[in-house]
Amino acid sequence: MKTVKIGVIGLGRLGMEHATNISSRVPGAELAAVCDVHAQRVEQVMEELAVPYGYTDFAEMCENPKLDAIAVVSPSALHPQQIALALSKGKHVFSEKPLGTTVAQCKQAEKAVEAYPDRIFMLGFMRRYDTSYMQAKKIVDAGRIGRIIMIRSYTQECIKTIEGAIQFGPTSGGEFLDMCIHDIDTFRWFTGSEPKELWATGDCYEFQEFAEWNDADNASCLMKFRNGTMCFTFAGHAAPHGTNVETEIMGTRGILRIGSVGTDSLLEIMSQDGITRQCYPDFQRRWHEAYIEEMCEFVRCIQQNRKPEVSVYDGTACSKIAYCCKESFETDRLLQYQG
Amino acid sequence: MKTVKIGVIGLGRLGMEHATNISSRVPGAELAAVCDVHAQRVEQVMEELAVPYGYTDFAEMCENPKLDAIAVVSPSALHPQQIALALSKGKHVFSEKPLGTTVAQCKQAEKAVEAYPDRIFMLGFMRRYDTSYMQAKKIVDAGRIGRIIMIRSYTQECIKTIEGAIQFGPTSGGEFLDMCIHDIDTFRWFTGSEPKELWATGDCYEFQEFAEWNDADNASCLMKFRNGTMCFTFAGHAAPHGTNVETEIMGTRGILRIGSVGTDSLLEIMSQDGITRQCYPDFQRRWHEAYIEEMCEFVRCIQQNRKPEVSVYDGTACSKIAYCCKESFETDRLLQYQG
Amino acid sequence: MKTVKIGVIGLGRLGMEHATNISSRVPGAELAAVCDVHAQRVEQVMEELAVPYGYTDFAEMCENPKLDAIAVVSPSALHPQQIALALSKGKHVFSEKPLGTTVAQCKQAEKAVEAYPDRIFMLGFMRRYDTSYMQAKKIVDAGRIGRIIMIRSYTQECIKTIEGAIQFGPTSGGEFLDMCIHDIDTFRWFTGSEPKELWATGDCYEFQEFAEWNDADNASCLMKFRNGTMCFTFAGHAAPHGTNVETEIMGTRGILRIGSVGTDSLLEIMSQDGITRQCYPDFQRRWHEAYIEEMCEFVRCIQQNRKPEVSVYDGTACSKIAYCCKESFETDRLLQYQG
Amino acid sequence: MKTVKIGVIGLGRLGMEHATNISSRVPGAELAAVCDVHAQRVEQVMEELAVPYGYTDFAEMCENPKLDAIAVVSPSALHPQQIALALSKGKHVFSEKPLGTTVAQCKQAEKAVEAYPDRIFMLGFMRRYDTSYMQAKKIVDAGRIGRIIMIRSYTQECIKTIEGAIQFGPTSGGEFLDMCIHDIDTFRWFTGSEPKELWATGDCYEFQEFAEWNDADNASCLMKFRNGTMCFTFAGHAAPHGTNVETEIMGTRGILRIGSVGTDSLLEIMSQDGITRQCYPDFQRRWHEAYIEEMCEFVRCIQQNRKPEVSVYDGTACSKIAYCCKESFETDRLLQYQG
Repeated sequence: MKTVKIGVIGLGRLGMEHATNISSRVPGAELAAVCDVHAQRVEQVMEELAVPYGYTDFAEMCENPKLDAIAVVSPSALHPQQIALALSKGKHVFSEKPLGTTVAQCKQAEKAVEAYPDRIFMLGFMRRYDTSYMQAKKIVDAGRIGRIIMIRSYTQECIKTIEGAIQFGPTSGGEFLDMCIHDIDTFRWFTGSEPKELWATGDCYEFQEFAEWNDADNASCLMKFRNGTMCFTFAGHAAPHGTNVETEIMGTRGILRIGSVGTDSLLEIMSQDGITRQCYPDFQRRWHEAYIEEMCEFVRCIQQNRKPEVSVYDGTACSKIAYCCKESFETDRLLQYQG
Repeated sequence: MKTVKIGVIGLGRLGMEHATNISSRVPGAELAAVCDVHAQRVEQVMEELAVPYGYTDFAEMCENPKLDAIAVVSPSALHPQQIALALSKGKHVFSEKPLGTTVAQCKQAEKAVEAYPDRIFMLGFMRRYDTSYMQAKKIVDAGRIGRIIMIRSYTQECIKTIEGAIQFGPTSGGEFLDMCIHDIDTFRWFTGSEPKELWATGDCYEFQEFAEWNDADNASCLMKFRNGTMCFTFAGHAAPHGTNVETEIMGTRGILRIGSVGTDSLLEIMSQDGITRQCYPDFQRRWHEAYIEEMCEFVRCIQQNRKPEVSVYDGTACSKIAYCCKESFETDRLLQYQG
Repeated sequence: MKTVKIGVIGLGRLGMEHATNISSRVPGAELAAVCDVHAQRVEQVMEELAVPYGYTDFAEMCENPKLDAIAVVSPSALHPQQIALALSKGKHVFSEKPLGTTVAQCKQAEKAVEAYPDRIFMLGFMRRYDTSYMQAKKIVDAGRIGRIIMIRSYTQECIKTIEGAIQFGPTSGGEFLDMCIHDIDTFRWFTGSEPKELWATGDCYEFQEFAEWNDADNASCLMKFRNGTMCFTFAGHAAPHGTNVETEIMGTRGILRIGSVGTDSLLEIMSQDGITRQCYPDFQRRWHEAYIEEMCEFVRCIQQNRKPEVSVYDGTACSKIAYCCKESFETDRLLQYQG
Repeated sequence: MKTVKIGVIGLGRLGMEHATNISSRVPGAELAAVCDVHAQRVEQVMEELAVPYGYTDFAEMCENPKLDAIAVVSPSALHPQQIALALSKGKHVFSEKPLGTTVAQCKQAEKAVEAYPDRIFMLGFMRRYDTSYMQAKKIVDAGRIGRIIMIRSYTQECIKTIEGAIQFGPTSGGEFLDMCIHDIDTFRWFTGSEPKELWATGDCYEFQEFAEWNDADNASCLMKFRNGTMCFTFAGHAAPHGTNVETEIMGTRGILRIGSVGTDSLLEIMSQDGITRQCYPDFQRRWHEAYIEEMCEFVRCIQQNRKPEVSVYDGTACSKIAYCCKESFETDRLLQYQG
């Protein structure tokens, strides 16, 4: 099987996660190039991971004929144009979510993907490649929990990361687009349905900075889906114990919970404080295996010339729903969602 | 300390729970009389619990000068008139929730309570007397979890009890009045605030019978409280594993969960199915100690001539909110709540 | 059914537990008398629990014709003579473990019980009346875990109670007689067999005081039972998180664990320390319901004139085994146990 | 950093685990050769993992000048001679445990390692590279649990794998050498001490086949270490729920548990059976990350020319202790261990 040579654009925390995985944990893949606006960062990573090519200019990297694919891990607003450029240069593209920070941008990405139907495009909804979520999906699909009544899904960041959250808040798209989007994808994935109506609310419970860009530091949204399922999402920055992503799927014949005790450590500590377990310290640790697995799937799709389960349209749909949440939050109205 | 002689009206499952507790588990109390429309049931309980007086007529029981207090555990719609009658005959009154099945009824109960200010009146919000909820309240009041961001509270009945739920559904007041009312009390208790607005939704996911009385077999409601707290309640009849009541209180500096693994058994079973714990089989087992503790508190209030924490106005407020949920569910509108 | 009037001898922590339970939580029982060497304590309890008779002399209490039964909760060394005296005065007897602090004493108690075959005698192996242990026993007896391979049982006291442990250490009989005896009873109860051989070891890991009476502050013993079952017991005083009693029963087709997370609280706390649950703070809280249930059983046995499951011979057997452990520990030899 | 080219001898389940990890998950490593007695297996793996060299003769593989290192994953009895041969051909050697199936064999391996002091030799005690064990070690070394009182460590294989256990039983070295050896390593690692005395026992609780080679299907051993620590190990084949390895470390100021709920899945299933979590299905899944991490450490040691933490002497010591357990089990005597 031909090795897939991949260039990574964006060398922040998540970019490095992908670069490192491609470099040493994804069979059949080779980290052939890295690109970042900071030249020094590029050099450093080239040395650290033994990467042959380095760029500060994305267009230039796309011209490299040795590259089969590009992994887009840049700031969200740049995703659509970079996706389009890479595809136009004949590259397969893996892009981190969100597809774009506006619905118009998402449509632009859709067009680019449609224009190059022989290229593989995949969006980074990594939860779909997490072992526990995959197990849950199988159980649901096998009908073991009956009809889905409600899905509750939390995306909680550790309070320790609040500075970064405030710093990147204005450009992140906000709680619903940046955080709930994974919950929204989860809802659509498990129900196979779309929201009918929703109401979102929230507040600045501690960090008034979020109000500056019309956002909340903690927010939630209750949705009713067309198939009747109730979906509840909560996004927050105040988790004291670490990064916590929890999903509960209630059916008429069974209930599934993922991440109720969110940890990959088997260690319990008995002390005068009681019986204690440690939660995931950060999102990288929580999703490390899922990030590897989704990249493996991307590489397999290229090698086997087949489309990934997640399409560009899933990206647009999730963004549209997130925008509807945002509008509901801003206007404090119960909104009908037009799929 | 003088023994408090109590008569119980209503000898259904919950009535028997209270009767048995008064009979043998509440220090300072004596089960002096029982009353039920079924004469045979009365006789049977009189013998079983060695009760000196038995009645099929409530008014008659209230005339018994030996009785200090009445515990009202009859069908919800009868609560207000029975409360009023018992008070007018000089009895202290403990009443199961809800205070009444309409807000008008609740107001009627309020008037009766106001008319006899020297009588003790207590409403059966037993969660407030559950060890775990009491621990949580202390932690919250001590400021250990900071400002409350969100409270999520579930009231789930086991699927095995669905027949009873359907049978009593038409007269129960519905999901919000009959089940969520405890969650609503929890929200008010922990926040000290009232809802500002709310949206309720739900469906008949399996049992279409509930539609006959404009109800859902599973329903939820998202509320925004005046102090900013988001409150989410879910009530359902499809829990496969038993009776599950779970409350989560998220603060800016800590999170509390009560009943995430709802069981009073310390037993874990390792088998080919995995590692299994048993949930509470029914509500009596879940709340047994809390039912005892609330009755102890009722008796202590009488003996010490002081008012319980829960007032008749709390009963009215919870019912009003539950009715607002019901209206929101029926009209599918986001409603402003007028306290 | 006739009310059983009980007198309690010994008003320490455990004595008060039993006195309070008899007074208000055991149907069909009445706390009719209390006895203790401290006159002031007797008066105080008489007032607190409204007890009609009080004594500082045990023999005097036994003369009271109104008493049907005596609950012996005095220092261990006094058990046999008090059991004998109470029986000789026509009383039914409930005695706390151990039956005596020497095997000779146990034999003395056996004789007394044999001399009054129409009197009910019951020994306080309260674990047998704990819900979780009873559930486990049913599962084992139903053959659901196959043949028992190993039982592991811990008795751990909280480090906070170390002062009392040291104070009463010299007269307690030591780790094996005072603490492991419950584990030993558990082994015999579940296997229906007796030890064939055993080796006990331990040390003064922190508190050298225990060496003064040839004891260890933490000790363990591995036994092989005649039916092949391996049994491992550990007793210690260093539990940081509370009182922990844990029993694991491994079978050829399933494994049961009781008390792996030992708590009656449903509360989980998420904080910067992680996810924390509180253990039982002390033994009274751990066994409160079991203490009630065993006293209920004692009363039922009297009322129904039948023998309890636990006989006086069980008491002797457990003490003999505990003494064998002690000898093994002191001589550091693998000992054959002569049943 | 120079890539380390590794040849793997033995392509059974564990051999394939290592081969796959070296091939795609260990940075800086290359799977350059595989060797197995089954020619067809060699060809198959060469194709599957794109391995350039394949052998059915171990000596031949050792002659390949392109190989820097050999990973020995062959049957236990072959380890010493293969270690010696590989070292003599200038290769670095990673060997699975045990070092040998007799103490004499272990000594032979020691000599070989001593003869080539510039070569890296590492033994596969993978628990030391498991995240949870590493966390525990740090906590213990930081003194957070005080002095260690007792370590309990279980190695339980799933009943589903019993056929293989019986098949390989006669040549495996038995329960103590094949299974408890990891627990023994754990004891030595955490205490830094050696056993003073021990008593082992066990039986054929279900599978009489084990008696044919003087072994038990379930066995345990209680040890007293020279520093006073009590160590208890249990090895069994009857775990119904999967592969379970659990270690508890009790200190005078805290208790650690690893693997009490042994699973890498975050999924809980609520059903009519209760609340269920799945255990690890097999040892590969349990130790997958640890196998990767230990191989990474082997490669780093080669690249940085430093010795791994685990020496060849640790291998001999663990085997000696395991043999002492075996002797104690066979003779049913309490044995003094001569380090």
